[in-house]
Amino acid sequence: MFFASDNAGPVHPKVMTALVAANEGHALPYGADDLMTAVRSHLREVFEAPEAAVYLVATGTAANSLALATLCAPFETVFCTPVAHIHEDECNAPEFFTGGAKLTLVGDGAKMSPEVLRAAIAAEESRGVHGPQRGPVSLTNVTERGTVYTPGEIAALSAVARDFGLKVHLDGARLANALVATGASPAEMTWKAGVDALSFGGTKNGLMGVEAVIFFDPAHAWEFELRRKRGAHLFSKHRYLSAQMLAYLEDGLWLENARAANAANARLAEGLQALPGVRFSHPPEANMSFAAWPRAGHRRLHEAGAQYYLWEGQLEGDDPEEALTARMVCDWSVTDEMIDRFVALVRGEAAGEENVPG
Amino acid sequence: MFFASDNAGPVHPKVMTALVAANEGHALPYGADDLMTAVRSHLREVFEAPEAAVYLVATGTAANSLALATLCAPFETVFCTPVAHIHEDECNAPEFFTGGAKLTLVGDGAKMSPEVLRAAIAAEESRGVHGPQRGPVSLTNVTERGTVYTPGEIAALSAVARDFGLKVHLDGARLANALVATGASPAEMTWKAGVDALSFGGTKNGLMGVEAVIFFDPAHAWEFELRRKRGAHLFSKHRYLSAQMLAYLEDGLWLENARAANAANARLAEGLQALPGVRFSHPPEANMSFAAWPRAGHRRLHEAGAQYYLWEGQLEGDDPEEALTARMVCDWSVTDEMIDRFVALVRGEAAGEENVPG
Amino acid sequence: MFFASDNAGPVHPKVMTALVAANEGHALPYGADDLMTAVRSHLREVFEAPEAAVYLVATGTAANSLALATLCAPFETVFCTPVAHIHEDECNAPEFFTGGAKLTLVGDGAKMSPEVLRAAIAAEESRGVHGPQRGPVSLTNVTERGTVYTPGEIAALSAVARDFGLKVHLDGARLANALVATGASPAEMTWKAGVDALSFGGTKNGLMGVEAVIFFDPAHAWEFELRRKRGAHLFSKHRYLSAQMLAYLEDGLWLENARAANAANARLAEGLQALPGVRFSHPPEANMSFAAWPRAGHRRLHEAGAQYYLWEGQLEGDDPEEALTARMVCDWSVTDEMIDRFVALVRGEAAGEENVPG
Amino acid sequence: MFFASDNAGPVHPKVMTALVAANEGHALPYGADDLMTAVRSHLREVFEAPEAAVYLVATGTAANSLALATLCAPFETVFCTPVAHIHEDECNAPEFFTGGAKLTLVGDGAKMSPEVLRAAIAAEESRGVHGPQRGPVSLTNVTERGTVYTPGEIAALSAVARDFGLKVHLDGARLANALVATGASPAEMTWKAGVDALSFGGTKNGLMGVEAVIFFDPAHAWEFELRRKRGAHLFSKHRYLSAQMLAYLEDGLWLENARAANAANARLAEGLQALPGVRFSHPPEANMSFAAWPRAGHRRLHEAGAQYYLWEGQLEGDDPEEALTARMVCDWSVTDEMIDRFVALVRGEAAGEENVPG
Repeated sequence: MFFASDNAGPVHPKVMTALVAANEGHALPYGADDLMTAVRSHLREVFEAPEAAVYLVATGTAANSLALATLCAPFETVFCTPVAHIHEDECNAPEFFTGGAKLTLVGDGAKMSPEVLRAAIAAEESRGVHGPQRGPVSLTNVTERGTVYTPGEIAALSAVARDFGLKVHLDGARLANALVATGASPAEMTWKAGVDALSFGGTKNGLMGVEAVIFFDPAHAWEFELRRKRGAHLFSKHRYLSAQMLAYLEDGLWLENARAANAANARLAEGLQALPGVRFSHPPEANMSFAAWPRAGHRRLHEAGAQYYLWEGQLEGDDPEEALTARMVCDWSVTDEMIDRFVALVRGEAAGEENVPG
Repeated sequence: MFFASDNAGPVHPKVMTALVAANEGHALPYGADDLMTAVRSHLREVFEAPEAAVYLVATGTAANSLALATLCAPFETVFCTPVAHIHEDECNAPEFFTGGAKLTLVGDGAKMSPEVLRAAIAAEESRGVHGPQRGPVSLTNVTERGTVYTPGEIAALSAVARDFGLKVHLDGARLANALVATGASPAEMTWKAGVDALSFGGTKNGLMGVEAVIFFDPAHAWEFELRRKRGAHLFSKHRYLSAQMLAYLEDGLWLENARAANAANARLAEGLQALPGVRFSHPPEANMSFAAWPRAGHRRLHEAGAQYYLWEGQLEGDDPEEALTARMVCDWSVTDEMIDRFVALVRGEAAGEENVPG
Repeated sequence: MFFASDNAGPVHPKVMTALVAANEGHALPYGADDLMTAVRSHLREVFEAPEAAVYLVATGTAANSLALATLCAPFETVFCTPVAHIHEDECNAPEFFTGGAKLTLVGDGAKMSPEVLRAAIAAEESRGVHGPQRGPVSLTNVTERGTVYTPGEIAALSAVARDFGLKVHLDGARLANALVATGASPAEMTWKAGVDALSFGGTKNGLMGVEAVIFFDPAHAWEFELRRKRGAHLFSKHRYLSAQMLAYLEDGLWLENARAANAANARLAEGLQALPGVRFSHPPEANMSFAAWPRAGHRRLHEAGAQYYLWEGQLEGDDPEEALTARMVCDWSVTDEMIDRFVALVRGEAAGEENVPG
Repeated sequence: MFFASDNAGPVHPKVMTALVAANEGHALPYGADDLMTAVRSHLREVFEAPEAAVYLVATGTAANSLALATLCAPFETVFCTPVAHIHEDECNAPEFFTGGAKLTLVGDGAKMSPEVLRAAIAAEESRGVHGPQRGPVSLTNVTERGTVYTPGEIAALSAVARDFGLKVHLDGARLANALVATGASPAEMTWKAGVDALSFGGTKNGLMGVEAVIFFDPAHAWEFELRRKRGAHLFSKHRYLSAQMLAYLEDGLWLENARAANAANARLAEGLQALPGVRFSHPPEANMSFAAWPRAGHRRLHEAGAQYYLWEGQLEGDDPEEALTARMVCDWSVTDEMIDRFVALVRGEAAGEENVPG
């Protein structure tokens, strides 16, 4: 029962097969491999963006930081939410890669509204050379709280950015899950909604460690290549990144995995919502749920070896009825059995009766 | 016939097998996987360094830059040769990761002598706060010209560094090849010879993309972890780095691969040395050769599809007798057939008679 | 009538005299001048800190940024208020000089409380290597809203920092004004209250452009010297910085100027408080006032050439009764005549009757 | 007898007078002062560059580093000589301000030739994304060895830079001395010779601490302003920088001072050249001389309190005839009396007979 993160699941077997298949003889290094040519074509097609600049890196933080560094001067500030991954979970990598830009925190949740964004940008106006200059807006979809922006919501935020002449970055570590959740096309959710640069996630959705960075305006391409190399994120044996991404795109595996993860989360959420005393903090719109239930349920899960984040509260404590909040994330590999067992433990079933591997 | 670099060969089958084997269920992310525990033990044993801090990253540039950033303040300078990978081939990554440190170029070749190093360090003395401060010495073994330092040579250079209170970093992207070439033990070539931090290569020697960074003094450990994360080089699905490194170490695969690569290079060098008109620029002591022969031979190789770097000179040119210098690197997978075919083409055999895949 | 900032007034005549007096023959450059020896002794005596490391720079931003860079690693975050000068008015200089550290905004005003600080520091705890690490706390006294911390308040905040092992920096661009306002001694307001590093202002209080940076623990001295030089803030003709600071300290000129500025502000505040329809946003505890009154009064001031910041609202507008907020800062040179004229204009006196130079 | 540097002499009396005159009432801060308007006009006129962007900073390192940071991306390399001030005497400030750019050392002396520059730039070509990219060429005139480029020489080097699409920066810390030495006009030595950005020195030539940065293409203006502020080099009481620069330009004081300094150096050089056993290392073309003479002469100077840099060799030593090299720099305030006394001491006159203040 592993719901701690979608970055801890296995690689999809088709991806492993592709890696093995790619392992023949020598290949040109540093992105000059033939597989990368196919990846580039594929991603341009998927995004209906024949001119887009497409690159691969191995971590989501690299994708975000390098994309932002390409869009943001060191004397500027990035507009993002206070729970943005770039703010909370990258150990100052955006500040490092941009050469010292600032992050301005917009709103108080995982989604920002156009009004609040407009106010935040407007507020960075009056100090001339003294304050940071306005830089790009960075959105996350699926958000860090498991909620999803529709293409219309992204477009409304991009329109605000455009009013101030600012670029838009989308952290799409879970973009596939957002597309599946909304039914939007890749193009609708990105450049048609005003996104300039995209971190297109793969690692959390069945790959071993590959993310694409896509600039819909290829003017940024060469600078990005230099920043990627300077950041030590250009792989010599690049074909193994390409092979993963290609397998991901072929036959829609990326969407299939996301559908599986979202469905797993839906089953989990439905199971939990049916229980008395379970309260959700955010609508579980993709593959992530935040919900609270009494400590006793958490204790049963803990004894049974379930893995998830205790988001608020402590497992230790006197009151078995005190509600503690959990974060649960489903990846493509989570099984119905794991989910049902998890729900049963929350409901009150004793741990240890049967042990579900996972 | 692929001799362009040892970073373009395939992953060793045992490593692929280990990756597939590691692909079961969920694993704790970010280096907390069980395989990493085994990697740590294994590397400490191999290096006879039970206290060493051991980390994995995915690129050689990351290993070097992060190790140097941990050892070198931004107002210091790193002492290295003018052909050091950190100087020539990392697009200012060391400058980036250190926050703006300088590289002071020592000597005029790929190996530095203690006398020249001493003079270079001494020369950075007289400017007090005005000049950069002395920082670590960075050596490469196997060097960028295919020559090898003995442990005694490393120790002599480290002794100079110690006289000035400086740390020593070793870029061991091809350390296995250097050990095989000299017969030295890992400990003799590193900490027993005064090395403080090591980039321990795997990617050029049969892995998909893994290098270890080893600090023999674990005081640097936590700072390194933070710098790795901030540099976007901490992998969530870390188990796949661990699995590679573990397979590399088990049963001495790393040394076996290096022996194969060095032997291939020896066969190639012997073949070429037997030919009239072939001149070597550097002694081919490990898995890399630099040699010159007439343009006509290069043309034959080119027509036959051989891949290697034309180091000096241009394939195009009127004079078929003009000597052009090649860099040839052998990885573990190079076959005798490829080598013999390559030598035959230099010797004068016509291209196209038979086509050796590779 | 100049109340826009205390950084726009003239240099005190005694300081100009000292500059002229220092202008004899040659002097050792880069801080080796004899006057600096006297400055060092004087500041150590003033702060009862015989071991303190004492340096001069020319701007407040340099003092703050270099002090913070010495205390804060690039993967850490500085705790400060959302209106801190280091956050709002230094164009990312702290991020630049620290190499990319973050600023965590504490509370919602210019003063932070121990409880809110403790909560903010505690909140940066749970992410291990993923989030920024906790770095120094930076306070400002006089605050950016003209309020003043007592030594006890500083000590209470420092105690929170100490509980987490964090250092404390004090932005004392207006420290003299805070000391005069509270009656505290320099030592009581700084190291006795737990301050580790101090930006000791001079420029806003009668100097041409000099701030001291004082580390009460001299272990930071050499690193600071290197960072200062690397930041291009080491002056060759340093004696002219020393001469200013020495004149500032001699005969208590620094406190005398601060007393004059605080008294001017008190007179201004009393004058305004006596008027109906004037509301203060913050208690005017030192040399700065924030107050609102009807647009009509601002128009009269504007016509009369008064200079101050319109902090909230627009001079243009239909409603003469709408309240607009002003920021007014008094430096040592502001005269009673200017103040009284300013108050009279707010009260309703017509502009243009007499013109007060300033 | 002070010949250690031209950064240790007094401020010219006319400049002090201008500072005192500027010290009336309040002035707009941060470069919005009226005097700066006059400085801008004056410099544009002097340089025959009506569109130039003109800024003031307080140190030469700030001028150089900020100008280079505006011209040079962090993944590029600056071409300069191995004795360039930016390489040897700025404690990695260019690396810091550019965000980690590299400096590529061209040639082996203080002046570079077009051929050697071309070869150096060409050599940075073959590594694509792996090596640093080519960035600006930075020249120094007067050079760090007291020699002078003619406008024709600057133009020839700029032409090489232009062939590769590179910008040219001129470190003119002693530009006035170079103009006086060559008779060239400011425009001839700079933009007419292909210079894009100029550090225009004042501090070494009679000012207290002011350098101008001039971009002949004003497209760089706003970025420079932001970098200056972010570097903590924007002065609030900017009028005192303006006042210095204005006094420097008025009535040609800057050229008058340079003429005095060059004449002093000529007198010194002639005096020394007339002595047997004195050998010059470089032609003393401006206000700086490098020459060697026997240790005994240095000892006499030392006893008499003469200040200058012992460039090569040690004062202590057994052999009174061993030649030691001195660096001597004349500023505008050096007197004939000091010079003649210095020469007399080298010649053999006993120290202590009379003591010349200085």
